[in-house]
Amino acid sequence: MRISILGGGGFLGRKIANRLAKEGTLGGHRVHGLTLFDIVTPPVPEAPFPVVALAGDVVDLPEAAIPPGTDVVFHLAAVVSAQAEADYDLGRRVNLRGTDALVDACRRLVAAGGKPPRVVFTSSVASFSATQADTLPDAAKQVPGNSYGAQKAAAELILADASRRGFMDVVSVRLPTVTVRPGRPNKAASSFFSGIIREPLLGLEAELPVPDDFGVWVCSPRRAVDWLLHAGAMDTTGMGLDRSLSPPGISTTVGDMLRAMDEVQPGASALVRRVADPAIAAIVGTWPPAFTAERARALGFVPHEPFVDVVRAFIEDDLAATRQERGL
Amino acid sequence: MRISILGGGGFLGRKIANRLAKEGTLGGHRVHGLTLFDIVTPPVPEAPFPVVALAGDVVDLPEAAIPPGTDVVFHLAAVVSAQAEADYDLGRRVNLRGTDALVDACRRLVAAGGKPPRVVFTSSVASFSATQADTLPDAAKQVPGNSYGAQKAAAELILADASRRGFMDVVSVRLPTVTVRPGRPNKAASSFFSGIIREPLLGLEAELPVPDDFGVWVCSPRRAVDWLLHAGAMDTTGMGLDRSLSPPGISTTVGDMLRAMDEVQPGASALVRRVADPAIAAIVGTWPPAFTAERARALGFVPHEPFVDVVRAFIEDDLAATRQERGL
Repeated sequence: MRISILGGGGFLGRKIANRLAKEGTLGGHRVHGLTLFDIVTPPVPEAPFPVVALAGDVVDLPEAAIPPGTDVVFHLAAVVSAQAEADYDLGRRVNLRGTDALVDACRRLVAAGGKPPRVVFTSSVASFSATQADTLPDAAKQVPGNSYGAQKAAAELILADASRRGFMDVVSVRLPTVTVRPGRPNKAASSFFSGIIREPLLGLEAELPVPDDFGVWVCSPRRAVDWLLHAGAMDTTGMGLDRSLSPPGISTTVGDMLRAMDEVQPGASALVRRVADPAIAAIVGTWPPAFTAERARALGFVPHEPFVDVVRAFIEDDLAATRQERGL
Repeated sequence: MRISILGGGGFLGRKIANRLAKEGTLGGHRVHGLTLFDIVTPPVPEAPFPVVALAGDVVDLPEAAIPPGTDVVFHLAAVVSAQAEADYDLGRRVNLRGTDALVDACRRLVAAGGKPPRVVFTSSVASFSATQADTLPDAAKQVPGNSYGAQKAAAELILADASRRGFMDVVSVRLPTVTVRPGRPNKAASSFFSGIIREPLLGLEAELPVPDDFGVWVCSPRRAVDWLLHAGAMDTTGMGLDRSLSPPGISTTVGDMLRAMDEVQPGASALVRRVADPAIAAIVGTWPPAFTAERARALGFVPHEPFVDVVRAFIEDDLAATRQERGL
């Protein structure tokens, strides 16, 4: 099995690469080669198979990024929410023209006699809008309230059509807000969902811009990787024209997230200061706090563990590295 | 009021131009100028205001196609269903890159201090898929079964986002199958929906590739033009993030269409031969036969008259010209 990861240097891309390197297989099949592609050359994990790391622009995707014989492509290359909102041209270019470039790369493989590769596309909860009272069914239509979500929803349509035409075999996974992210706080509107856990666990203060009863649909990085790997190997025969799904995340509140943290590290939430920010609340307030996720469950996507386990996983997987990276 | 029509030389574009020329107003406002743009220079109707006709490629949209001061743009430029299915690159280029070019043209107007123009976009029933048993509510999600529909649905998302960002003020109208079309039979899968009426009224035979009880969602060219003009002048304040709607067409069967024709011209349906075509049935069989269209009604879109009036309108508006064009 030959695998490519577009966005292989990013947070989730690196985690997928590391998991493949560690396990050596995907869906029970041995991995024979991995290509990592990103705007900056991605780090190469130690692996029992050859790994090629390439730098370039996803819109001018080099043939080597998805070489002949590629079985699975993880398409994670994206301009994220806050940046796509701030820079319309950049978001459109990477999130839409980048998707077209992927379609064309897969078409070339098929035209040369190859089989249509499985493509795993990371779409997002941000492609929906809803109120705090909603639980969205799988049949909910996407009415995005931000350019990132609009571009992700449009890309889902384009990839599903490319799949119907036989250029690829796509599964689009609409990821919840991934938390706890390692590293530093950033300017993404959703940054605080990680910050209120990561910063106190580092002994630092964090700001909470929404009320404690604010509802949110989240998943851990570990579970996001599980789901993306499952999407890379699952049977797609029954999916029909609709190639997208919302995996079974956790519908929680920030208050419950803080209580889970205190369960693991008593008193940690005392470092969280309530600083209302109506601008941030307005953005994240349009993101649905819950999905039924029935389709994904039926397709074998593992439901999420409780949030307390997410806190424990962050401590296990990412806390030490974050401390080191930030010189704490 | 200054108006541009992209696709101003097409079937509906010409009809809109003629109506504006005849009435001299849109939504009670006087028209001061009309620009018609198409791949071939569109015909210029006699009008009480200046009309400019331009030829060009919508992807390289010249500034003159949407000049400064434009209040309303009708975006009808498209590669239609059968062609977009046969030529993926052409469909993607015109239906998606053409839409981007429109977005950029509107951004330039706004950047230069102009107000965001109203954009009326013709989307399609083909952006949905359904069974013959379905009546789709306004909340139905689009799961297209053809590249044309996928490109239209993606363009709706991109235009709604451009609208949210203040580049334009869009209304996307998901037109039913427009029938009775004048002219000749063509290779569109939906061509027979017009052919079974037009050809017998011309004294010619027509083939019906689906059973008589086949359900279809149709509208007349006249009503399509009414709706698009209404979309050009309506109040959009209450629309929110969702800028698309399905107007109130007719849910009918081909058998009922033939009976309506016989009511107007007794015996005409004897010229219709039943020639089952599973390939055509497979394509049109995924198009929903009915919509509730509640949102459009609430927004002032006039419900459709019975199909017998559609037959009469075709005779009034298009039969003589079609006879002449085809040398009959």
